[in-house]
Amino acid sequence: MKHFLSTKDLTTEEMLTMLELAESYRTNHLKLDQQLFAANLFYEPSTRTKMSFLVAQKKLGIETLGFQVEDSSVTKGESLYDTAKTFESIGASLLVIRHQDDNWYKGIIDNLSVPVINAGAGKGEHPTQSMLDLLTIYQEYGHFNGLNIAIVGDIKHSRVAHSNAHALQTLGANVYFTAAPGFEDRTLDFPYISIDEAVEMCDTLMLLRIQHERHNDEQYDATSYHEAYGLTVEREKKMQDHAIILHPAPVNRGVEIASELVECNRSRIFKQMNNGVCVRMAIITTLLKEWGMHNENSTYKCSTLSRIK
Amino acid sequence: MKHFLSTKDLTTEEMLTMLELAESYRTNHLKLDQQLFAANLFYEPSTRTKMSFLVAQKKLGIETLGFQVEDSSVTKGESLYDTAKTFESIGASLLVIRHQDDNWYKGIIDNLSVPVINAGAGKGEHPTQSMLDLLTIYQEYGHFNGLNIAIVGDIKHSRVAHSNAHALQTLGANVYFTAAPGFEDRTLDFPYISIDEAVEMCDTLMLLRIQHERHNDEQYDATSYHEAYGLTVEREKKMQDHAIILHPAPVNRGVEIASELVECNRSRIFKQMNNGVCVRMAIITTLLKEWGMHNENSTYKCSTLSRIK
Amino acid sequence: MKHFLSTKDLTTEEMLTMLELAESYRTNHLKLDQQLFAANLFYEPSTRTKMSFLVAQKKLGIETLGFQVEDSSVTKGESLYDTAKTFESIGASLLVIRHQDDNWYKGIIDNLSVPVINAGAGKGEHPTQSMLDLLTIYQEYGHFNGLNIAIVGDIKHSRVAHSNAHALQTLGANVYFTAAPGFEDRTLDFPYISIDEAVEMCDTLMLLRIQHERHNDEQYDATSYHEAYGLTVEREKKMQDHAIILHPAPVNRGVEIASELVECNRSRIFKQMNNGVCVRMAIITTLLKEWGMHNENSTYKCSTLSRIK
Repeated sequence: MKHFLSTKDLTTEEMLTMLELAESYRTNHLKLDQQLFAANLFYEPSTRTKMSFLVAQKKLGIETLGFQVEDSSVTKGESLYDTAKTFESIGASLLVIRHQDDNWYKGIIDNLSVPVINAGAGKGEHPTQSMLDLLTIYQEYGHFNGLNIAIVGDIKHSRVAHSNAHALQTLGANVYFTAAPGFEDRTLDFPYISIDEAVEMCDTLMLLRIQHERHNDEQYDATSYHEAYGLTVEREKKMQDHAIILHPAPVNRGVEIASELVECNRSRIFKQMNNGVCVRMAIITTLLKEWGMHNENSTYKCSTLSRIK
Repeated sequence: MKHFLSTKDLTTEEMLTMLELAESYRTNHLKLDQQLFAANLFYEPSTRTKMSFLVAQKKLGIETLGFQVEDSSVTKGESLYDTAKTFESIGASLLVIRHQDDNWYKGIIDNLSVPVINAGAGKGEHPTQSMLDLLTIYQEYGHFNGLNIAIVGDIKHSRVAHSNAHALQTLGANVYFTAAPGFEDRTLDFPYISIDEAVEMCDTLMLLRIQHERHNDEQYDATSYHEAYGLTVEREKKMQDHAIILHPAPVNRGVEIASELVECNRSRIFKQMNNGVCVRMAIITTLLKEWGMHNENSTYKCSTLSRIK
Repeated sequence: MKHFLSTKDLTTEEMLTMLELAESYRTNHLKLDQQLFAANLFYEPSTRTKMSFLVAQKKLGIETLGFQVEDSSVTKGESLYDTAKTFESIGASLLVIRHQDDNWYKGIIDNLSVPVINAGAGKGEHPTQSMLDLLTIYQEYGHFNGLNIAIVGDIKHSRVAHSNAHALQTLGANVYFTAAPGFEDRTLDFPYISIDEAVEMCDTLMLLRIQHERHNDEQYDATSYHEAYGLTVEREKKMQDHAIILHPAPVNRGVEIASELVECNRSRIFKQMNNGVCVRMAIITTLLKEWGMHNENSTYKCSTLSRIK
């Protein structure tokens, strides 16, 4: 694996190996003993993904280079390729990129000579988010085979849904979609079920955020949407005892999910964020190893110091 | 002290202990030997406060996580609580927050499980600014008891005035307010005196910045304001020999204070900024100690390397 | 040399010494063993210059303080001088400043007590860009004496052209300008030649970016401009075998230069960016040494770890 761009590229073994590595980083992790630079190029807003990449990099001892589109040469018309090549030229050994184009990496990736991680591609893929969702499920069940997983909400505009559907199918889970009319994505071949069917049968309910910023003029009423298609307090009561709730956040409280459920017992929403750090550490070290930029001899072990929740 | 939110919460002993600790950090300070992360969440513009927190954290060996509201999930409607909880989840051991709400910490603080520092709350409080003002006065006089201190300017919109008035009263100083008509804050019970009375009788003149961004359509003429209510070159001559001038900056030169007085002999304006670093180091280590995240054995001493001015 | 502001201030010996130092940093460089802070104050957008200063500083072990104009007290009207003085007060030992004023440093530099580097001054000077251009030429030819160098494009608005013309003249090169009508700068005394003369006779073709953001309402057609004044595929074929192409980037592909030439054999465009890091390291250590903030005993050598391209 030279780059980390899409869950479609990943085999079951590759995913499980990375999840085990991520889990091991919760208690002990490597610190590189050479000075490497990572460039984090976010063309779209981000809190969780950007910040957990920063924490992951700093825990590994990697120097971080920030980038604000509006203060950069992007404002002078510089292309993504030229910007990426610039960071490579000034010494970045790793590029982490989020961009509004669903396929931003196609056409440029072959001309870059450092590993690249997709931190979100328009409505296309968000494979590192998928890996942290997988880790959260794996911590719960220890496997994926035969699990019933419902992905619920704005499927059409959700890169999270796309990456998770592919990954979970590869891993042997039964994937179902639930969407309000107009929010379906018919280009993907997964069965649609209603929210009421989903809450009763699933082991994991993966809620999605309504992507207001990707809708054009479609209007919807938050309260009606919540009643008809969201996880209400009433619906949560019908979930199986062991079933858990995921959401990539930020949460539209009272829309996809009742505000009082965000931190309920079966919610893993903040645990997902915590998992994001060790998952991204595992993705980074896997790639650096593949590129010969790190091996176990060029690192030292250190116990994880920030508190595990 | 679990959080640092308001000078109203502080006893005389707590303040003096922190000032002594801050003063000691000017020559020697601790460096934590574990990797901790601080999240600096500034919802309003800042140069001095943000940068001196960064310097304070880096001197203590704490990793910093930046945050630009406009590049974050705040643009997708994420609440302050959800954002704070996110940073906690990804590993921040300390939150430093500036927000436009006068009482942003009320209602959210009990659900956070890391120490929180108020770096400015709307027109409410700005307790870390107050601590650096106190240190500057303390360096000058060695005590606060019976000192005459005039807080001058836009009292109504000034969180600095509010925090300082409470703190100085606790410490035994005589606090007076001076304000142009409309700039008073009648919710606080301190005597108002004229600018001409203030300059003649005070030991410390604490000037405030006119908060243009918090005024609505009130217009004022800078030159007339300066003549009537500002520290002019003429007024400065009437100050007592030992009296000093403070201003939290940024300064509106020629409005609150004559431009040529900004770096005059009795001005402590740039010294205040310098003091901001060691004061914030003291506040941080005091909180981390309280939360069991640092003790003297888990640190090593290092001499302060940047030049003291 | 107390500050690094203009190539007009530099002697041949000073420039060559810095180029040799920069070249030596490609394989081995110093890491300061005291904690110093650099403030990078960019009032105009930047990718390359800002990021290569960051990499240079981090390689030297210097802590970096970022600054976004729109999140700072500049939005409250704070002047450049007051902002610079603020960073000095909170502990910065080095200021790197880019500002839209052609002469921003005049009038303020004498009141600052830390070294200042000009990272771009409006349409005036950009001396660190010039130094990396010089290093790129020096790597190619080992000298400057008698080299024919054509600076081509938007001379009038280009601080890069101004800094390079002065420096190259000092170093003994023959400098020619090539500009479309209206893009000349008649305040500088260098001969103008046509683009077709330039490509045939020069050893180095220094292309400039058209500074759209500094033009007012002048309109031009990119295709016509490219044909008449740009480096087309046809013109490149007429260059001497050994001649090289420079461009400070970001590149307007298809305007100043044909897109397919950006990474052609004689292009040094990405090598220039790579050179930017070691050149800026050399400028920084030269200034710190001058100010007594570093000497060889207070540093330790380390091999350059990021891959040299």
